[in-house]
Amino acid sequence: MDAPASSPTTSTAAVGAAVEAAAAAASGWARSRPADRARALTAVAGALEAERERLVAAADRETRLGPARLHGELTRTTFQLGLFATEASTGALYDVRIDRADPDWPTGPRPELRRYRTALGPVLVFAAGNFPFAFSVAGGDTASAWAAGCPVVVKAHPGHPELSRLTAGIVRRALAGAGAPEGVFALIEGERAGVEALRHPALRAAAFTGSERGGLALARIAADRPEPIPFYGELGSVNPVVVTEAAARARTREIAEGCAASLTQGAGQFCTNPGLLFLPAEDHGLLAALTAAVGAVPAAPMLGDRFTAGYLDGAGRLAALPGARRLVWPAEGAPEPAPRLLALDLAAFTAAGRAATAECFGPLGLVVTYGSRAELTGVLRKLPGQLTGSLHAEAAEAEATEAGADGELAALAEVLGDRSGRVLFNQWPTGVSVTHAMQHGGPFPAATVPATTSVGTAAAERFLRPVAYQALPEVLLPEPLREANPWGVPRRVR
Amino acid sequence: MDAPASSPTTSTAAVGAAVEAAAAAASGWARSRPADRARALTAVAGALEAERERLVAAADRETRLGPARLHGELTRTTFQLGLFATEASTGALYDVRIDRADPDWPTGPRPELRRYRTALGPVLVFAAGNFPFAFSVAGGDTASAWAAGCPVVVKAHPGHPELSRLTAGIVRRALAGAGAPEGVFALIEGERAGVEALRHPALRAAAFTGSERGGLALARIAADRPEPIPFYGELGSVNPVVVTEAAARARTREIAEGCAASLTQGAGQFCTNPGLLFLPAEDHGLLAALTAAVGAVPAAPMLGDRFTAGYLDGAGRLAALPGARRLVWPAEGAPEPAPRLLALDLAAFTAAGRAATAECFGPLGLVVTYGSRAELTGVLRKLPGQLTGSLHAEAAEAEATEAGADGELAALAEVLGDRSGRVLFNQWPTGVSVTHAMQHGGPFPAATVPATTSVGTAAAERFLRPVAYQALPEVLLPEPLREANPWGVPRRVR
Repeated sequence: MDAPASSPTTSTAAVGAAVEAAAAAASGWARSRPADRARALTAVAGALEAERERLVAAADRETRLGPARLHGELTRTTFQLGLFATEASTGALYDVRIDRADPDWPTGPRPELRRYRTALGPVLVFAAGNFPFAFSVAGGDTASAWAAGCPVVVKAHPGHPELSRLTAGIVRRALAGAGAPEGVFALIEGERAGVEALRHPALRAAAFTGSERGGLALARIAADRPEPIPFYGELGSVNPVVVTEAAARARTREIAEGCAASLTQGAGQFCTNPGLLFLPAEDHGLLAALTAAVGAVPAAPMLGDRFTAGYLDGAGRLAALPGARRLVWPAEGAPEPAPRLLALDLAAFTAAGRAATAECFGPLGLVVTYGSRAELTGVLRKLPGQLTGSLHAEAAEAEATEAGADGELAALAEVLGDRSGRVLFNQWPTGVSVTHAMQHGGPFPAATVPATTSVGTAAAERFLRPVAYQALPEVLLPEPLREANPWGVPRRVR
Repeated sequence: MDAPASSPTTSTAAVGAAVEAAAAAASGWARSRPADRARALTAVAGALEAERERLVAAADRETRLGPARLHGELTRTTFQLGLFATEASTGALYDVRIDRADPDWPTGPRPELRRYRTALGPVLVFAAGNFPFAFSVAGGDTASAWAAGCPVVVKAHPGHPELSRLTAGIVRRALAGAGAPEGVFALIEGERAGVEALRHPALRAAAFTGSERGGLALARIAADRPEPIPFYGELGSVNPVVVTEAAARARTREIAEGCAASLTQGAGQFCTNPGLLFLPAEDHGLLAALTAAVGAVPAAPMLGDRFTAGYLDGAGRLAALPGARRLVWPAEGAPEPAPRLLALDLAAFTAAGRAATAECFGPLGLVVTYGSRAELTGVLRKLPGQLTGSLHAEAAEAEATEAGADGELAALAEVLGDRSGRVLFNQWPTGVSVTHAMQHGGPFPAATVPATTSVGTAAAERFLRPVAYQALPEVLLPEPLREANPWGVPRRVR
């Protein structure tokens, strides 16, 4: 979170002006027709596409992620804006419910009630360092808040300030061209500015993707305001993967290679990086194959020196756990940050407690070898909340499983679902698809609000709150609640 | 929140056992078929009905609310259990979304994803004092958590311990008879026990209705846990009512009588009591009529001596505000707690700040006289969050209104919607109907989580969180996500 001392910080006055402009725009933006909001989002997507080469070049200079990955991420970002534009237009989001007046309602005459979800108001988005497009200035949090009808103030990530300013300029021009009110978007920079915006009385919600430490500090500020506001933090995950003995035997090489690729992709800088691998003690050569596969991956630059330092520190702590074996570890003086693989047995993992489940952001895997699957289920039940949990098993095992019986495949899938937001079967968790049914969140610390997601169309639900109207004349009702349904949104009428 | 010293407190061991039993039951209850959960809720409703006379008599002894009101509240409570049983069965609640695998998805092949909302886990319900049935042991929070599939530990309100125990016994027997697991329900007593349960690592959410001070203290405990959990607090509201000059002229007596009745009903002990009335300076005799109507209402007993003391203290503070006039105020030595009516002009109200918008729980109305409607809109915009906001106006005014123009009727309705969870037109906010489109919540402090409601079927959403399953074999999927749809729930397939 801390910006380098040289990084510019938005002045207190400018932060106040940004939030106040957002507050002034809030009511109009919330009530704007979905088609108008959709046009604004689509205009931003188009403007970003038009500047694609410049944006990717700027991002590569500051993040070292490479053009291929950055082109893909920009595609995801513009696609995401379009998807939220559609979501705002089709309007299931507003969850319109209409209860007709009913004189015979069992508890006494029921008044006419019309309820929808409307925008919360100005939202502060803390951009993430590891997705300079998809979770930054015009990323998923921003797009979903706009779709909900909220103005957005983005606090730039200090890792890519030039790209943030470049993106912000493109966004501002596109919004103005699409006729969106000016207060709908602003960029601020610097840690102090972010905290000031978070404390501003007119702010109504904040979204954050980053470390548990930084996120918890901000969550506390949000909770300690005179008017506390929702803080949607996505604070990290080690994304446990369980491999059964049958799978290890049947697909030794496929699993080893898939795992190594997912673990080291993008220098391991993904929230969904599979950092905790439960492999059977009888592994049919899987551990050796995995060791070879990870060991063959060269060192790749991380987003910045602070990320590298954090990775090396975290790796050192895990390697120092009692019983930890270094399966892949760079020689003294070898290029860094190199991929690493450590191993513990289940008893040593359990004895280490939370120290063994701390996220080490980067290309490191901790292998935990288990003897009994029943014992493993018990250990999984005690994991902190996760974004994802993966199960690699054979189809035949799935057929023969029994729900509830510890160690059975069904019980393993159940416990992964209990402790995470997404459960995968024979797939790897990196590469989160932006869709309707995606869930990117989970029990704490995966998310500070476990009922929410920060990826997929449901992400917009974070920025809405319900209001009911009782017996209002048609002309005073918000448009989506009027009998004539001018927004053409789906409604549940009872 | 503080129990009398003589009140029994559940032992630390018993609190731990209650939460642990809830945790042990959680997975099975979450996965139980909706029909089974519905049967349990219906059984509880039936058992309460069967003991109606005994329950009402016990409630009347402890709360002094009178048999008529208590019979009505019990009807609401059993109806509510039935409504949540239906809600659990029909299953829109689970928000099932299925994305088919799509190799042509623009950001790369889309995996098969199936997402639903499932139970959060053990829930702690803090019972309220003012609704000994509807917001107590088997009230709305409990019913909605059960419908979501969460086991419930209820912390009894110290105002009606005998009724709480009587209700708990009936609930336990009914649940057992319906085949529900034992851990699905427990009653604990005492403030210390409530805090211990809130801190228990296995707890997953808490719901509370009560004072801002007590609620904020508990919210902080929930946020400061090693694993923070959602805390759904409904902390109070003064429920502003705006009367236009045209309405004051056309319906002077009707408004005065309706207001006095809503304000003093049940000794004013409702969260939705209309405690803040904005009347036009040109009032056509409305203020005099209201003064007469409120002055004619005799003192009625409150729930207990602590409530009475709190009411008299709050009334004294409001009466001491600079510029406050006592329109209805009991003579020295008159029976208490007597209804009260105070008045301030708009400038004095504004000058008093938050002191003038503090909730005074009981039969007190604060009248604020306004000259200009444009000025009034500005003042409403700065109100703290409210459960409700009401507008009394003439139909002809509504027809001639203009959105956005300060003081216009549409702008008044808009600002009431911005600051509250429910907007009413020519109706009074007390008597909250339990329906699908009801919203009982609002910006802080009306609710600690403004996206949620504690009344109506949407209340169950508080106790759910989404989980997505990626490419799982049918047999490992939770039942509502299976292709065959054995629960028969609505699904959005894309």
